[in-house]
Amino acid sequence: MKEALLYEKNDVRIIDVPIPTIGPTDILLKIKAAKICPTDVRKYNLGSNDARIRSLPMNLCHEYAGEIVDVGEEVKHLKKGMRVTGYGMRGNAEYVKLDADSSNPNLRGRILELPPNVSYEEGAFTTPLSECIHCVVDQVDVRFGETLVVVGAGHMGIMQTNIAHWCGATVIAVDLNDERLKIAKEFGADYTINASKEDVVERVKELTDGKMANCSIAGIGSPPVIQSAIDVTGHHGRIVLWGGAPTGTIMQFDPNDIHYAEKYLIGVEGIGVGSKRHPERRAQAVQHIASGKIDVKKLITRVMPMTDIVEAYEMIKKGEAITIVITP
Amino acid sequence: MKEALLYEKNDVRIIDVPIPTIGPTDILLKIKAAKICPTDVRKYNLGSNDARIRSLPMNLCHEYAGEIVDVGEEVKHLKKGMRVTGYGMRGNAEYVKLDADSSNPNLRGRILELPPNVSYEEGAFTTPLSECIHCVVDQVDVRFGETLVVVGAGHMGIMQTNIAHWCGATVIAVDLNDERLKIAKEFGADYTINASKEDVVERVKELTDGKMANCSIAGIGSPPVIQSAIDVTGHHGRIVLWGGAPTGTIMQFDPNDIHYAEKYLIGVEGIGVGSKRHPERRAQAVQHIASGKIDVKKLITRVMPMTDIVEAYEMIKKGEAITIVITP
Amino acid sequence: MKEALLYEKNDVRIIDVPIPTIGPTDILLKIKAAKICPTDVRKYNLGSNDARIRSLPMNLCHEYAGEIVDVGEEVKHLKKGMRVTGYGMRGNAEYVKLDADSSNPNLRGRILELPPNVSYEEGAFTTPLSECIHCVVDQVDVRFGETLVVVGAGHMGIMQTNIAHWCGATVIAVDLNDERLKIAKEFGADYTINASKEDVVERVKELTDGKMANCSIAGIGSPPVIQSAIDVTGHHGRIVLWGGAPTGTIMQFDPNDIHYAEKYLIGVEGIGVGSKRHPERRAQAVQHIASGKIDVKKLITRVMPMTDIVEAYEMIKKGEAITIVITP
Amino acid sequence: MKEALLYEKNDVRIIDVPIPTIGPTDILLKIKAAKICPTDVRKYNLGSNDARIRSLPMNLCHEYAGEIVDVGEEVKHLKKGMRVTGYGMRGNAEYVKLDADSSNPNLRGRILELPPNVSYEEGAFTTPLSECIHCVVDQVDVRFGETLVVVGAGHMGIMQTNIAHWCGATVIAVDLNDERLKIAKEFGADYTINASKEDVVERVKELTDGKMANCSIAGIGSPPVIQSAIDVTGHHGRIVLWGGAPTGTIMQFDPNDIHYAEKYLIGVEGIGVGSKRHPERRAQAVQHIASGKIDVKKLITRVMPMTDIVEAYEMIKKGEAITIVITP
Repeated sequence: MKEALLYEKNDVRIIDVPIPTIGPTDILLKIKAAKICPTDVRKYNLGSNDARIRSLPMNLCHEYAGEIVDVGEEVKHLKKGMRVTGYGMRGNAEYVKLDADSSNPNLRGRILELPPNVSYEEGAFTTPLSECIHCVVDQVDVRFGETLVVVGAGHMGIMQTNIAHWCGATVIAVDLNDERLKIAKEFGADYTINASKEDVVERVKELTDGKMANCSIAGIGSPPVIQSAIDVTGHHGRIVLWGGAPTGTIMQFDPNDIHYAEKYLIGVEGIGVGSKRHPERRAQAVQHIASGKIDVKKLITRVMPMTDIVEAYEMIKKGEAITIVITP
Repeated sequence: MKEALLYEKNDVRIIDVPIPTIGPTDILLKIKAAKICPTDVRKYNLGSNDARIRSLPMNLCHEYAGEIVDVGEEVKHLKKGMRVTGYGMRGNAEYVKLDADSSNPNLRGRILELPPNVSYEEGAFTTPLSECIHCVVDQVDVRFGETLVVVGAGHMGIMQTNIAHWCGATVIAVDLNDERLKIAKEFGADYTINASKEDVVERVKELTDGKMANCSIAGIGSPPVIQSAIDVTGHHGRIVLWGGAPTGTIMQFDPNDIHYAEKYLIGVEGIGVGSKRHPERRAQAVQHIASGKIDVKKLITRVMPMTDIVEAYEMIKKGEAITIVITP
Repeated sequence: MKEALLYEKNDVRIIDVPIPTIGPTDILLKIKAAKICPTDVRKYNLGSNDARIRSLPMNLCHEYAGEIVDVGEEVKHLKKGMRVTGYGMRGNAEYVKLDADSSNPNLRGRILELPPNVSYEEGAFTTPLSECIHCVVDQVDVRFGETLVVVGAGHMGIMQTNIAHWCGATVIAVDLNDERLKIAKEFGADYTINASKEDVVERVKELTDGKMANCSIAGIGSPPVIQSAIDVTGHHGRIVLWGGAPTGTIMQFDPNDIHYAEKYLIGVEGIGVGSKRHPERRAQAVQHIASGKIDVKKLITRVMPMTDIVEAYEMIKKGEAITIVITP
Repeated sequence: MKEALLYEKNDVRIIDVPIPTIGPTDILLKIKAAKICPTDVRKYNLGSNDARIRSLPMNLCHEYAGEIVDVGEEVKHLKKGMRVTGYGMRGNAEYVKLDADSSNPNLRGRILELPPNVSYEEGAFTTPLSECIHCVVDQVDVRFGETLVVVGAGHMGIMQTNIAHWCGATVIAVDLNDERLKIAKEFGADYTINASKEDVVERVKELTDGKMANCSIAGIGSPPVIQSAIDVTGHHGRIVLWGGAPTGTIMQFDPNDIHYAEKYLIGVEGIGVGSKRHPERRAQAVQHIASGKIDVKKLITRVMPMTDIVEAYEMIKKGEAITIVITP
């Protein structure tokens, strides 16, 4: 089968490898749709310099959906022919093997059947959408009537905007790109701020009658974005650090920014770490796609074949696409 | 009457001023005991360079107790002769005027009567103890069975240790001074670490079987203390920034220290700010002193007259006293 | 001016009384729209037998909006000519006097200006809508992805349905009346159950794959409704008792219904009682009406003059109206 | 080996049975101490009429500690000779077999090693103590400075008193027996009320300056105890139904008792049910016994051999013992 691997920065090759052999608790998935995550593009840019690269070559994709074509003998709850969304790595390939051991609590919610009205392209959003739900609902813990500032309106920021909209919040989306802000508005942003044209803190002050926001999300792990996310909140402001920072990032941080106003600077990772993993957020992601409440297909700029993956990465780098789905 | 004022750093003078005249909602308090707060010493060291100095000369003391000797005509709930603890500034003086307007929600809990078994010296701890309760109970939100690391075992850290002990937590107190750590132990620290002799992070790892602490308090607003407080916690660790940082403090902060482990960096100020002020913590402070659960009098190294206030500041600076109470 | 008073059950009279004289902290409101609350109808039915009747005759209406026509000399934040929503009694009259003392914390949020795009009829929903927000957000505390059963789809149940929909919940509305259920669906109910045609508990079991609901609201204070609200929830189910029970109501209650599944039976009153009043819910009610998120005008079956108030009560009793707004 | 079985009410027989054979994930425990639980006595009284009896004959005891004398081949974390506390049934016997499958999340925390300074008699309190921690910490959620009323000061109520004392609460213990109240006081009750001599509600009103308690525990599943637990709380009062009610118990319940004051009636079962099981409470129980904070051995009235088990049940029935530990 074909598989796309990153060998070093800017060096992706499509190679031939054998179809994986499955063990007794595994399934074999024929991949139908593989979404590009911003981290994939970061790794493509940085190669072995990226903190999350353990060894090269590496198959970057971890957000996909497909059809089950084989199941191990101990797998009882999944069947051949099922349309599912999976969670794992190696998604830029024709087939992928996934451990479906139902006795492992860390795998709970990993493989979920897609309802008939959810396409594979939409199903590939399960992982990022569930992580955005975890971010907004568990970590920001946004409440009805609160004001949330989302700093960074890429497709993740747009999904966060939409979820917060569905939590009854007033959402202010911030970005440098008017096109993205327009889409954020379609997904429920009550207000948008183009940070290249307006002073973000002043504008938030104005929109909140001087009270500042209750909470914010720093969409990118860069110090100015984090500082901005801190500064737009008021007393007891909760600021969630969504984007991981590139290795070696050091922020010039004034602890009094947190201390005196009793603010909360909060981490988030996946659907939760350690004893607080939230597998239910995956099922809710599928359910909200199916109900049409969260209309992820509007976020797909293009569907492209795996042979064009480098072009797809370049489009995202240049801001020419909100997101792109790859078909093997 | 006599009043002690800071004119510039290291320059405290005792001067003669008229006894304050009270208005219809005020009381006049004859001060019996005025506790020195670590912030007083910081201001004494820095003078006009301290962030919290608005104008000089300034009467530093804000933690005191005394006897009511006069009440304004509109004050109904307080009477002459009452032994009370107050909250305000200008405590290094023979008398102080305090607004006792009961219709002002921001003054709720300001002036509280002392039970007969609570001395004036103990009553002067109401403010710092209530702030320590707010820190441990509201901001750290420590729960029964959790492990808390208190980095900095001055008299504030010792009170925090004691409160957390009374919340069913396992407490690890950290300091550079063995004498303080000994007292922390008497106040309920389960373990102590002298940071000048042991590696704090390694020792916490050992004491928690590798799980690290659930929460920590950074007692001083200095970057190494804050970093240490972050590093001793595990997944979902809550780190409270107790000590305000001197103006201009900048920490070299890695956002990933918070991001990936879903930690919480949390501010705290007084008994809460804005809509989340906790006046009930003041009444609880008095109640726990009265019941003997929190035995603040053990924290008083010496009681000294106001004429010796500079000597008292110097003793605290040199670590020769846990805390000192001044009598006018 | 004209005022409608209840003298005894089924005995409402419209009488002539002087326009109220206002004091220094009062305003005089010319009432433009006065909404009928289900409690008004209950009092009309029961007269002096109703628990909430203190003395008769009584002006029942407590949900209204109007124009300020006079302000006391100490009132600074309100002006003649302002269009506002108020909170108080005596709304079935041409004018009402309201205390606007801004120093009284219990009056916070009482009188709010209506944005230009909110009509008086809509503004009269501020009180019931804010109470529904308090119910769903503070007391049920419904979270994104949870399933809520609303037992009773009168206009209150419909607003609760809509708020929970705006909190990202899956909502199941239950009633005996198909017309109401149809409107509940328009307001975001994902499923509806007509309790006269289907077994409610069985149907909820089916809709939740056997897990039962996370939470429920007992819309009426009657034992079968409360029992049903308990029975449709699963482990840790939160059941909120929305409707007050008529005086003397006694339920045959099995404590084990709560004990073994660790359920929570929860009260709710207005926008909160004692130290937990939520005045911010009133401002949010106005804001969500203005933004169009919560479209209360669809709940107004008719606008009728005060002279037809008895007919209006009778229509509501017979289920011929969702709700009715009275104009003096 | 010898085993004590309940055949019908008041009919316990000691019989000879083979030592259990263990499977690959089991351990064999030689029982050293088996504590009598109030439920055991209830079952002894009611026999097949008790709701929790599934079939007879039945070995009642479920709270014990002992030495591991054999381990199945797949058990890696436990070894022969270990002193442990276990959780399961069949404790009135010389040996018991326990499944120690570490991959089963429902068995997490089931078998815990006892520290050297914890005796077998003390170790047998792990289960009831962990359930009391779950009750006070998770369900009552008592906070520092709050007032808790514990209605029923048997050994469970006394442990709850002690835990709440360790959470910084003011505890009022209520019982009919002065001897028990005396012990409750030794375990940290700030006040005690003998309900046969004083009006409980009036006394709580007095002790709380009219504010009533923040929370309460109904120690027994009987309507008057539950009503009392409701009535002693004020606004937002949390009332936890600790004791299961005998089958068929029906309470004459006024829903307005919960509705208007926004109270919470809360269930509790074991260390939590469904997705909210709290295995960490078991480890904390052992830790607090070991540290001496919770001194359970003071609750042991007598240690008696299994041959005297009927006498032990009778002593507890008659109120002649706080609790009794059986040795096989």
